[in-house]
Amino acid sequence: MKCRYFVLLLIFLSCGKMQETPIEKVNPATIDPLPSWNEGNTKKQIINFVSQVSDENSADYVAPEDRIATFDNDGTLICEQPLYSQLFFAMERVKELADNNPKWRETQPFKAVIDDDHETLKTFGIMDLLQLVMASHTGMNSEEFNEIGATWAFNSLHPKFNQPFANTIYQPMLEVIQYLKANDFQVFIVSGGGVDLIRTYAYEAYGIPTYQVVGSRIKSKFEIGENGAQVVKLPEMDFIDDKEGKPVGIANFIGKRPIAAFGNSDGDLQMLQYAAGGNGKRLMLLVHHDDAEREYAYDRESHIGKLDKAWDIAKAQGWLVASMKNDFKRIFAFQE
Amino acid sequence: MKCRYFVLLLIFLSCGKMQETPIEKVNPATIDPLPSWNEGNTKKQIINFVSQVSDENSADYVAPEDRIATFDNDGTLICEQPLYSQLFFAMERVKELADNNPKWRETQPFKAVIDDDHETLKTFGIMDLLQLVMASHTGMNSEEFNEIGATWAFNSLHPKFNQPFANTIYQPMLEVIQYLKANDFQVFIVSGGGVDLIRTYAYEAYGIPTYQVVGSRIKSKFEIGENGAQVVKLPEMDFIDDKEGKPVGIANFIGKRPIAAFGNSDGDLQMLQYAAGGNGKRLMLLVHHDDAEREYAYDRESHIGKLDKAWDIAKAQGWLVASMKNDFKRIFAFQE
Repeated sequence: MKCRYFVLLLIFLSCGKMQETPIEKVNPATIDPLPSWNEGNTKKQIINFVSQVSDENSADYVAPEDRIATFDNDGTLICEQPLYSQLFFAMERVKELADNNPKWRETQPFKAVIDDDHETLKTFGIMDLLQLVMASHTGMNSEEFNEIGATWAFNSLHPKFNQPFANTIYQPMLEVIQYLKANDFQVFIVSGGGVDLIRTYAYEAYGIPTYQVVGSRIKSKFEIGENGAQVVKLPEMDFIDDKEGKPVGIANFIGKRPIAAFGNSDGDLQMLQYAAGGNGKRLMLLVHHDDAEREYAYDRESHIGKLDKAWDIAKAQGWLVASMKNDFKRIFAFQE
Repeated sequence: MKCRYFVLLLIFLSCGKMQETPIEKVNPATIDPLPSWNEGNTKKQIINFVSQVSDENSADYVAPEDRIATFDNDGTLICEQPLYSQLFFAMERVKELADNNPKWRETQPFKAVIDDDHETLKTFGIMDLLQLVMASHTGMNSEEFNEIGATWAFNSLHPKFNQPFANTIYQPMLEVIQYLKANDFQVFIVSGGGVDLIRTYAYEAYGIPTYQVVGSRIKSKFEIGENGAQVVKLPEMDFIDDKEGKPVGIANFIGKRPIAAFGNSDGDLQMLQYAAGGNGKRLMLLVHHDDAEREYAYDRESHIGKLDKAWDIAKAQGWLVASMKNDFKRIFAFQE
């Protein structure tokens, strides 16, 4: 993952350098910043947007400090089927902790986890998910959680692809992140999922540091105990970074309205509306999961990643809708 | 401000470049990264720390993504006397809004503001301050607030120095920020004050972008009204980023324990304890206001910026205490 990232960065850097070299001139326009995208309108619109806001001579120029881009995580950057990846993590943790919590065998959402009842798990909303997340944080400090989270992300295998969960990130979207960063964008993940788990793998998987990941979170408090000064988690919700919560999380954490926003479901609608509501050139993009063969196909009727209202609004507003089937040349780095 | 910042950046950049130039070799060690600091132990310790954690061959080396530094704002980076600068801002706003809020003439903390009663104002705690902050946000969206805040910071004058408030930042501390950034640190402001006002001037004054400012905040909500999609403020406290709140704010926003933390008062104690509590080399520094002539002298008995318990702990733990009188060659850029 890290390697891919550096290779692309090197291409961009060398592209800049080559322009100065008198011996061999290379036209930077010939270097494709999005090699895993098929040629077509979606790719063209992304490149047009980035080129225009980064070009000082363009009427659409945006100063680097205002080049803020926000990405949803589940279903936009990483596979969210057959269950949110965070659920797989929470399931592992809940099973490990079940012996010490006998009540869980009779109480949802824990019961469905212990029984491996995927059909019930699929129907759970974000509050159930977050209850599991809270349980998965129990009894450890953040350093311990970071290690457990990263170990899971880079080792536990996705049931369909038989690859570590951190490998189920969409290569074309990773290229968009890298392309934006190479053009002085600040790129943030803004996820409905728990922020702590994403932070354990975001830097290595996406090149996005912990302080550029916004997400749902439980409360925590500072204490000086036998392990010294620590921030420890409390079993209480603090902030749900989903739907209307996404623009609020963006305002609190980033303090600026994004000029580009990327999502895949109705949970991302408000984030895209917030981005669209500013002045100047904007880019709003929805990833449409329409490739049952290479990944999954789901939209209006799905429990997970439902894309219904946001899709209609995207069409009405002229936002980009990327078809995974047609726009993505490949989906995962491990495929071919 | 911006100009100073770029000049220093140019010095660092040219320092790197000169090393590669075969004609004229300059020893980078001869370029002083902290010219506004007097020679002495404090300056030496700061430079030692930064050199060691940035040196790949040092046992104290820290990877760039973990080089997190946090700074308190009031009294650490900017003058907080005779009142927190945010209070001066809130006073201007409250006076402008007083005609529409006749009740304020009889209710604290508004009454003291309207009556210019500085003695009472000095006794106010953070909750009173935040009530004024909430009032100063009333009836506008964030774009309007940004404009009003920046106009105030760069135009309204400090009563003692007769300079815009944004000019009352401590030049030696600004140099520390720039020195850290030049060594690939990520620098954050972590303030007990309201986050929105600091964000209106932090980039121009300190070179710190909005998304690296953590602070106290009021609640807000997303709405699509007649002005389109907006995040609007609500008259209710959301988070107080002071004392025990600072490590919590750091964990929520940054997601990593700082390796360096800078403060000046008991409100910063827990942030410094949190930084000190991690493994590896650490830098904790308190700014001691002991220069009545060039700025103000206050510590254990002060209502604003009380430095008492934190001072004792700093001495016991061997944290750095910077004397403004002895360590700062100059305090403000506007002074000679």
